[in-house]
Amino acid sequence: MDSSNAPFLPEYFEFLRFQSISTDPAYAPQVNACADWLVSKFQRMGLSAQVCPTGGHPVVIARNEPKPGRRTVLIYGHYDVQPVDPVEEWTTPPFEPRLENGVVFARGATDNKGQILAHILGVEKTLREKGELPVNLIFLVEGEEESGSQNLAAFLEAHRQELKCDLIAISDTGMISPELPALTYGLRGIFSMEIRLKGAESDLHSGIYGGVAPNPATVLARLLAALHDDAFRVAVPGFYDAVMPLQDWERSGWAQLPVNDDFFKMAIRAHALMGEAGYSALERAWARPTAEVNGIGGGYQGQGDKTVIPREAFAKLSFRLVPDQKPEAVERLVRAFFEKICPPEVQMEITIGHGGDPLLCDPHSCYALAARRALAKAWGTEPALIREGGSIPILHTLRGVLGAEILLLGLALPDCAAHAPNENFPLANFEAGMRLNQLLLEELAKA
Amino acid sequence: MDSSNAPFLPEYFEFLRFQSISTDPAYAPQVNACADWLVSKFQRMGLSAQVCPTGGHPVVIARNEPKPGRRTVLIYGHYDVQPVDPVEEWTTPPFEPRLENGVVFARGATDNKGQILAHILGVEKTLREKGELPVNLIFLVEGEEESGSQNLAAFLEAHRQELKCDLIAISDTGMISPELPALTYGLRGIFSMEIRLKGAESDLHSGIYGGVAPNPATVLARLLAALHDDAFRVAVPGFYDAVMPLQDWERSGWAQLPVNDDFFKMAIRAHALMGEAGYSALERAWARPTAEVNGIGGGYQGQGDKTVIPREAFAKLSFRLVPDQKPEAVERLVRAFFEKICPPEVQMEITIGHGGDPLLCDPHSCYALAARRALAKAWGTEPALIREGGSIPILHTLRGVLGAEILLLGLALPDCAAHAPNENFPLANFEAGMRLNQLLLEELAKA
Repeated sequence: MDSSNAPFLPEYFEFLRFQSISTDPAYAPQVNACADWLVSKFQRMGLSAQVCPTGGHPVVIARNEPKPGRRTVLIYGHYDVQPVDPVEEWTTPPFEPRLENGVVFARGATDNKGQILAHILGVEKTLREKGELPVNLIFLVEGEEESGSQNLAAFLEAHRQELKCDLIAISDTGMISPELPALTYGLRGIFSMEIRLKGAESDLHSGIYGGVAPNPATVLARLLAALHDDAFRVAVPGFYDAVMPLQDWERSGWAQLPVNDDFFKMAIRAHALMGEAGYSALERAWARPTAEVNGIGGGYQGQGDKTVIPREAFAKLSFRLVPDQKPEAVERLVRAFFEKICPPEVQMEITIGHGGDPLLCDPHSCYALAARRALAKAWGTEPALIREGGSIPILHTLRGVLGAEILLLGLALPDCAAHAPNENFPLANFEAGMRLNQLLLEELAKA
Repeated sequence: MDSSNAPFLPEYFEFLRFQSISTDPAYAPQVNACADWLVSKFQRMGLSAQVCPTGGHPVVIARNEPKPGRRTVLIYGHYDVQPVDPVEEWTTPPFEPRLENGVVFARGATDNKGQILAHILGVEKTLREKGELPVNLIFLVEGEEESGSQNLAAFLEAHRQELKCDLIAISDTGMISPELPALTYGLRGIFSMEIRLKGAESDLHSGIYGGVAPNPATVLARLLAALHDDAFRVAVPGFYDAVMPLQDWERSGWAQLPVNDDFFKMAIRAHALMGEAGYSALERAWARPTAEVNGIGGGYQGQGDKTVIPREAFAKLSFRLVPDQKPEAVERLVRAFFEKICPPEVQMEITIGHGGDPLLCDPHSCYALAARRALAKAWGTEPALIREGGSIPILHTLRGVLGAEILLLGLALPDCAAHAPNENFPLANFEAGMRLNQLLLEELAKA
């Protein structure tokens, strides 16, 4: 493949050059310009398309002429991107796309401009080749995914009739390797919180008051240490009650994947892994809940010594949840746990952060089977059936409001550096994504 | 007492106006000017006195004409002061002394200018009244106590012959209350260290890698939680082996003092105390060793959530030691303890901070009995025999190099705010200090 001649490259680069960073209001004009570019692209393809205002950045909706008796497929994606910090770690500027050895480097190359554009150009190709699509198609491309999709729920509610569909296809997850595609049928949920302990009114001299004053940092360590047992299971009573056990077909299927402990050690650059006894690293990352300390602080953190007893100490915690755990239920359990074990000599304040339900889809439904056939044809190999460890809370809103099944057909590779410097996407994946789109619509039409 | 007419007030205020902050080189001229002022004061009293250069700020030495057959008493003090931060919390400027209701407010009012000047003026009074002192007297007033007495050991070594003495009297500790003086016969020692744990090379996404990557903050919490048992005893094996048990006379004597749990709660402004089971708050603060977390940090500490697994986490620890614990021995025990319990999945780095031996003097020696008589006469009540929880490492150097017994005769009150904003010293304490000096030299001469 002489990839530098790929016909889609100019449009891909145009799309990548928009600095559509959604978290920073200073980029709003670029975000808007990017939405306009998309609408114009959709219209040139022969779809009806429009920029739809929201309370924040606009949503772009495009569709073909719906016909009765056809399935309706909604393809969700986003045209906004992550900030580029630390910009000094980029080899070339993040918004000046660069092709090197068949790989495109730019912010958004994978997440999500590359993946959504592959779908768009797949549709364009089908229209050019056949003059028609096999399904009623809706593109919903939002501009706030990287800043929490704050306005999407309200938008979906307001437009639930027009957006009614049978299923929602999304390419915003991962593949196992360049040769091995995947259908992702599960994601973990999350519950986050902060715990803050207070002792005396001010920092104290540890000589004068050491042994007498409550030390919130010491107490905090004891509370956090109690979060796990010796087998590194979460020790909060009731925590596992709602956890669905891993199925035999999942464990045996995952055991075949080329993702072992060494893979994880290399990925995180650590000499060893840690986690719950009795499960492989892959099982722990995809399908077992966790309790993590995301941050901890208190007392003197500067150079050298300062012999104080801190007046307070805090920890930021997050719990990754798996089906069928609920953030609200976990909050109750964790709160009760800390309230029970926190000694009365310190004051405890718990602040609740954000929550998101875990996601589980049926990888054996007729739509999922259709998607698996499309994946297999696009890559010439059967896709892996996987879960992932992260959370995409907006999927619940999409599924809940539109009442449709979700298909996660990721095109990202493990080293695509999404959210990081030197984000990249191979042209081979882009082309496979176009093929996937054509095959997917075909298979779904027949399903 | 019409304290505003106290004849010593002008000289006390002059002494306090020098901004003799020893830690900040910018104040060196003020430190030197303060030393010069002291020399000049000593000379006006009829003592021979000089500014003695060191590798840092100078030492001031003053003495009367030594006569054979008399005891030699060295009075140690310091003319340097702590920095004044946070200066905005001072009611009036720290170097503009102010008298209010018989109490002087200024940086150094208690620590140590007020206390050492009371001794100096006591000597002046005796010389004026009697023309002679009952002992051979040496004043050693240093300028680096608040920055660690870095150059005093070398100075003492170089001048050990001229500074040879029978005992060393120091007023740099506390009284129980304005009515109850104290002889301090013990201080705690210290050993400080930092422990740092490392997991992966960088912070990781807790969705993708939670349950797989080592979390140094979680491991740190487990290590710190292991420092104490359920009775809040330090759980490091061997930690208490060298600890001298409290004597019956100490426990019964201290139980009589007006320093109970409520006293401590008010002093630290906390609703409860915490500490080793089986000992009163006073016993824990004065005569039991501790393990304290002085600071802890790792991962995300900003506003809101950031769901990372931190690449590292650290804690600053200090251990207060009691007779006969040694910092070097405690270092070995603590290091072995952490090395044994730290899981191999994280890397541990231990950095040793500073150490200081605990101090124990004999409150029943003939000199101590003489000092107790002087204290009793100066205040009209028997002094309490106490220990204190802090550490004054230089005392070991003084005792070791000069081979003399140490008498700690503090004039500071619990609310003197040494090292804090609005440091203060009652004129009544200043006057009692002058009386104490006169009586002390008299009693020591007879002892």
